[in-house]
Amino acid sequence: MASSVTPTPLLKDELDIVIPTIRNLDFLEMWRPFFQPYHLIIVQDGDPSKVIKVPEGFDYELYNRNDINRILGPKSSCISFKDSACRCFGYMVSKKKYIFTIDDDCFVAKDPSGKDINALEQHIKNLLSPSTPLFFNTLYDPYREGADFVRGYPFSLREGVSTAVSHGLWLNIPDYDAPTQLVKPRERNTRFVDAVMTIPKGTLFPMCGMNLAFDRELIGPAMYFGLMGDGQPIGRYDDMWAGWCIKVICDHLGLGVKTGLPYIWHSKASNPFVNLKKEYKGIYWQEELIPFFQSANLPKDCTTVQSCYKELSKQVKAKLGKVDDYFNKLADAMVTWIEAWEELNPSAPITNGK
Amino acid sequence: MASSVTPTPLLKDELDIVIPTIRNLDFLEMWRPFFQPYHLIIVQDGDPSKVIKVPEGFDYELYNRNDINRILGPKSSCISFKDSACRCFGYMVSKKKYIFTIDDDCFVAKDPSGKDINALEQHIKNLLSPSTPLFFNTLYDPYREGADFVRGYPFSLREGVSTAVSHGLWLNIPDYDAPTQLVKPRERNTRFVDAVMTIPKGTLFPMCGMNLAFDRELIGPAMYFGLMGDGQPIGRYDDMWAGWCIKVICDHLGLGVKTGLPYIWHSKASNPFVNLKKEYKGIYWQEELIPFFQSANLPKDCTTVQSCYKELSKQVKAKLGKVDDYFNKLADAMVTWIEAWEELNPSAPITNGK
Repeated sequence: MASSVTPTPLLKDELDIVIPTIRNLDFLEMWRPFFQPYHLIIVQDGDPSKVIKVPEGFDYELYNRNDINRILGPKSSCISFKDSACRCFGYMVSKKKYIFTIDDDCFVAKDPSGKDINALEQHIKNLLSPSTPLFFNTLYDPYREGADFVRGYPFSLREGVSTAVSHGLWLNIPDYDAPTQLVKPRERNTRFVDAVMTIPKGTLFPMCGMNLAFDRELIGPAMYFGLMGDGQPIGRYDDMWAGWCIKVICDHLGLGVKTGLPYIWHSKASNPFVNLKKEYKGIYWQEELIPFFQSANLPKDCTTVQSCYKELSKQVKAKLGKVDDYFNKLADAMVTWIEAWEELNPSAPITNGK
Repeated sequence: MASSVTPTPLLKDELDIVIPTIRNLDFLEMWRPFFQPYHLIIVQDGDPSKVIKVPEGFDYELYNRNDINRILGPKSSCISFKDSACRCFGYMVSKKKYIFTIDDDCFVAKDPSGKDINALEQHIKNLLSPSTPLFFNTLYDPYREGADFVRGYPFSLREGVSTAVSHGLWLNIPDYDAPTQLVKPRERNTRFVDAVMTIPKGTLFPMCGMNLAFDRELIGPAMYFGLMGDGQPIGRYDDMWAGWCIKVICDHLGLGVKTGLPYIWHSKASNPFVNLKKEYKGIYWQEELIPFFQSANLPKDCTTVQSCYKELSKQVKAKLGKVDDYFNKLADAMVTWIEAWEELNPSAPITNGK
């Protein structure tokens, strides 16, 4: 009898799915069995007069540029236009504890046994179990069924820390930069690596926004995707920027970041020539950004994500402003973002549906 | 025609296989197709009057305790007795560039397609391709076929660094400590994770000596398995100790440490009650050892493994001597080990068969 009852989707009332898009959301059909119980926040990029069709039966709210301008007023300057970086507006207007964000060219992948992967369920598992950033476990996620901490893992570290971010991967089209796309146009990711792991403290990683979940309460205000796209000198560094910022702040606050499962099926490669144009400044700026983030140090009295983020914006201005004036603008936008976040999320504790 | 020619085994004249044992080496039968072309160094532990049988057709040298005492004289005190830590004597007498060491209860594992895994070949691949300790690649080993560096990975770091250590894993019996063995007596590792990854700089890991390969020239003098077993207060921390030392030194010297593939099939769990007796001091000492190694800092003028190791021995004495007098003895043994190493390996460049 019990088996005929559909189980309640995990965190149904505590998680929003954020989707940036410029087109009709037909891709949701394939996700229907997994996403339909959840609330969607759709951030429409580009021409606001265009009507985006959402398949029937989904519960959603949709924001176009006019909505963003109306809600944020002059602070809307911190939200990118004509770039999927606009998705972070969805993080800000959500009232839930958890966010899952996915691109509209991402479909349901299959595991090696041929079974459809419920990506969202895996992200939730990742977020609800601890991370282990202080010591590496050679059998990967020690909290997973059939695994544990191995011999030599200090017992005092086995409780782990709270997980703030879950970074999922992609089968088929890998997330390569334009030069690699150009050199290896036919490369496809076919390797299913059955692992989730914590990215160790002090180590940076390239965070991709295609298939990403996080705990808004723990890290939301740092999940800013920067100034990209229309009127900006770069694109395709929105998620990278956010990834470097959140990692430095998670390390400082003792929070965990995981990567690995779940996989989604990434259907189509973006145009490498267009990408190269968007990326080329980022490709050389990043050689200065990485040492900056690797050596970034937050003072002890920064105990909230907001205070960490504002401190980081100061360091961006002081140390990266000389790389290019763009970083002065970005540092200001980081502050505007926090102000807008606090305006829309006035009380410290976020309602989490509990 | 070409396909009927047996390919020359990789590094046939540049690699020794080191096996510590107390019994006849019947386990080699299963490894014959993979190991027979290589030279074996067998380190016989326990009663030297016992005769260890080695299956026919293998090229080997065997050292028992009498041999160790004869070769090292008073310096033989640094080599453990009645503990598999004695294996490191084999590293010292080898004249090759690479070492693979394996326990005699480890057998050939199968990959998910049912094919026998040539563990040694995978270790060699790991050692001959670079490591990436300075930045995390979310698609794991970027040098592997079908993979690469993902978007956002700094181009200046894509050459990687030389790989010094390749740490392989175990299917079936996982490498758990005694408390975990006692709590989960029936847990088996059945998950084949198809990945090799670099352990990031600044991150420690529990290195298991069961299935391990390394570049002797790059890190050999630090691969000391400490004082364990007969006459010592602990056991089963030999490989852990070596792992912490080599990681600190690899990080300092800019060398890489990889973990993941290859898997071996670990056939039988050791007795958890016996293990608990060996481990219990290590279990609480390790709570002080980990912070020690995490904060260990080697001066810039330590540019060789030997000088790094001697410096580390001084820090062990200064900072861990107060934890227990055992660490004073161990620090002295570390120095003796280096002296013995230099005696047996007098000239800096090791003959590597090239």
